[in-house]
Amino acid sequence: MKATAKANAIVFTQGGPTPVINASWVGVLEGLKGSSRVGRVMGAMNGVDGIIKQNLVDLTAQSASGLEQCVLAPASALYTTRHKPSDEECAKVLDVFRRQGIRFVFGIGGNDTSETLHIVNEAAKAANYELRLFHVPKTIDCDLMENDHTPGYGSAARFVARAFMGVDLDNQCFGGIYLGVCMGRHAGFLAAASAICRQDEADGPHLVYVPERPFEMEKFLADVYSIYDRTGRCVIAVSEGIETPDHKPVLELLQGEQGKDSHGNVQLSGSGGLSDGLMARIKDHVAKLRPKEKTRARADTLGYIQRSYPDQSEVDRKEAREVGRFAAKMALSGDIDGSVTIKRDEGKRYKVRYELVDLALVAGKTRRMPSNFINAEGNNVTQAFVDWARPLVGPLSPRPKLKMKMMPPK
Amino acid sequence: MKATAKANAIVFTQGGPTPVINASWVGVLEGLKGSSRVGRVMGAMNGVDGIIKQNLVDLTAQSASGLEQCVLAPASALYTTRHKPSDEECAKVLDVFRRQGIRFVFGIGGNDTSETLHIVNEAAKAANYELRLFHVPKTIDCDLMENDHTPGYGSAARFVARAFMGVDLDNQCFGGIYLGVCMGRHAGFLAAASAICRQDEADGPHLVYVPERPFEMEKFLADVYSIYDRTGRCVIAVSEGIETPDHKPVLELLQGEQGKDSHGNVQLSGSGGLSDGLMARIKDHVAKLRPKEKTRARADTLGYIQRSYPDQSEVDRKEAREVGRFAAKMALSGDIDGSVTIKRDEGKRYKVRYELVDLALVAGKTRRMPSNFINAEGNNVTQAFVDWARPLVGPLSPRPKLKMKMMPPK
Repeated sequence: MKATAKANAIVFTQGGPTPVINASWVGVLEGLKGSSRVGRVMGAMNGVDGIIKQNLVDLTAQSASGLEQCVLAPASALYTTRHKPSDEECAKVLDVFRRQGIRFVFGIGGNDTSETLHIVNEAAKAANYELRLFHVPKTIDCDLMENDHTPGYGSAARFVARAFMGVDLDNQCFGGIYLGVCMGRHAGFLAAASAICRQDEADGPHLVYVPERPFEMEKFLADVYSIYDRTGRCVIAVSEGIETPDHKPVLELLQGEQGKDSHGNVQLSGSGGLSDGLMARIKDHVAKLRPKEKTRARADTLGYIQRSYPDQSEVDRKEAREVGRFAAKMALSGDIDGSVTIKRDEGKRYKVRYELVDLALVAGKTRRMPSNFINAEGNNVTQAFVDWARPLVGPLSPRPKLKMKMMPPK
Repeated sequence: MKATAKANAIVFTQGGPTPVINASWVGVLEGLKGSSRVGRVMGAMNGVDGIIKQNLVDLTAQSASGLEQCVLAPASALYTTRHKPSDEECAKVLDVFRRQGIRFVFGIGGNDTSETLHIVNEAAKAANYELRLFHVPKTIDCDLMENDHTPGYGSAARFVARAFMGVDLDNQCFGGIYLGVCMGRHAGFLAAASAICRQDEADGPHLVYVPERPFEMEKFLADVYSIYDRTGRCVIAVSEGIETPDHKPVLELLQGEQGKDSHGNVQLSGSGGLSDGLMARIKDHVAKLRPKEKTRARADTLGYIQRSYPDQSEVDRKEAREVGRFAAKMALSGDIDGSVTIKRDEGKRYKVRYELVDLALVAGKTRRMPSNFINAEGNNVTQAFVDWARPLVGPLSPRPKLKMKMMPPK
């Protein structure tokens, strides 16, 4: 576009919300503010669906205090969608951009979003319509390629870390077995976060199962029993996406055809199937080995609260805002496009920088946990993971340890 | 006991832990400190089990900073038990008190604990063994007689209130139906707390079901569909203890014999059975009325995190400490015993006072939600409930509302 021309901008959020997703679109808004190149900044309600239907809100009309309230709140005030547009719909998106004079585009989302953006961008190039289009990263799953971590992960990981500190202290009160299922279909970063508050060997979770390693039922039951037998308790964290050695969801193994929806897919989130199914197996196993005892065994599915509880990691909120600002800065700097990424600098002090990479490097791909984050047995995370994750979740209250000076019995 | 005699003291915690239960035993310790009447202060590990086994820890050996860490952490650092001692075991408890020179007794717990304490106290009186025995209230369920509310409730209610604000904002992003099951077997106070962050009619939860009102499946399905049909979404909070009009657990209605454990009891907590079962009924109902649509429907069971997430209500922590201190003060004031209660003063400003009541008034009884806290239809809470509950949960972040100035379509 001509150096003197003014164009409109659009920002939208897609996929599963995070506790800090609002910070990213507010960051875009802040980054564009005052530029003579930018006319109006619009927000599409419900992602691409809102673009197609021209369901667009004028973001320049928002008050500063209203925006700050959004930044502090979980979930997207612009709503979201999981709809993957067809080629025809992508053409429609481009048509709306033309009609509304939009040349600055900021899509905040995960790997599905980056793929959609990639398609729209290629269509714009083919039509010779100049777009400065950016993918702004977001996902609690932390599974985007090219990123050290993603905005949203730190806050969700903070919730999981603190939730497991709490349930582990709770389990310690009674003894017995506790299992909690965490979100994460393909990557175990979130279940791994359950280990962040551990201070020594006695602290749970004592076992962590992630989708990056095959889940073998017999080995699992033996692992659990061995710890319970030795210490009187066992706390277990499990990713919802764990798979059998032949790559079937474990939930399918537990439920058979029963657990599938009308499309033949297994519904992982929003159901207690996996936690209840695994706990039933554990109970049977323990009952066989200790037929006379009644073992306390409880299971939770952490559910949607993982991604929506209002307990943000401050560093996560800051970075979520900065990736939005960075995308805006890039958009104003020249005719470029791409995916914003977070890179971590080497060195003792935690420090990140933002870089733009080719959309094709991120689009539709899934990053999984590196091998050095998972122990050799495949049933726990390593200190390397905890060291990596610790700076992302913000300040944590210490886990208390009572000095146990026992009274002599009389 | 003689005015010059010195005696030992014991404190212990029982039943389900709360996020502030440590504050109460630390409060007892603080209240006894410096008294010439008190020798050693012991903590029994795992409640009465620890007394019977003489598994007693010397609490005078704890550092001030260590105690302060306990106060800030959820669950009991003295562990706990659900074991209800037999008459024989109660006699054994009294025997240990004699052997260890204990005359000051502080049991922190709910209605089961108060019952146990009542039995021990009567046995001591019969044996002419002077005890200054106190029940210190604690329960996230808020179901103790004679109390305006109980220590532990404010923090658990804070979690439920914030969790529902989060999941409601999350649900708003996509639309559809969300159901969350809260703890509470006989009283609905905790499920009711889901409504505390609502700001207007549009905010969820849109329906709240408590054990105080009969649950009728057909009415429930019609309620949910009516809101979903009108607004495109519906968020529902449900107490785990909801019952059918003929007083059977709803979970039993959903699962039949399947859901019962080996003792023939329905396991309410630590299972996704109720949320999944109710959501399956909702899905069937909506599918019948809208056969061509795929409705987004998700359910969570909030689980053990409700009582163990480290997000204390400050006022709750303060009161939990003060009931402990008050019990200690009473114990030092003369030969008395009883149950500490929290009374709320009338008036605009939130203010409480602590009073000692006869153990028999609290022991083994259950308080339920007053009628003016539940709406006439029995499917929601009233503003009177929110006004009562609001001061108990501490400061809440506001729920953001975006100004929706729409762009004209082109």
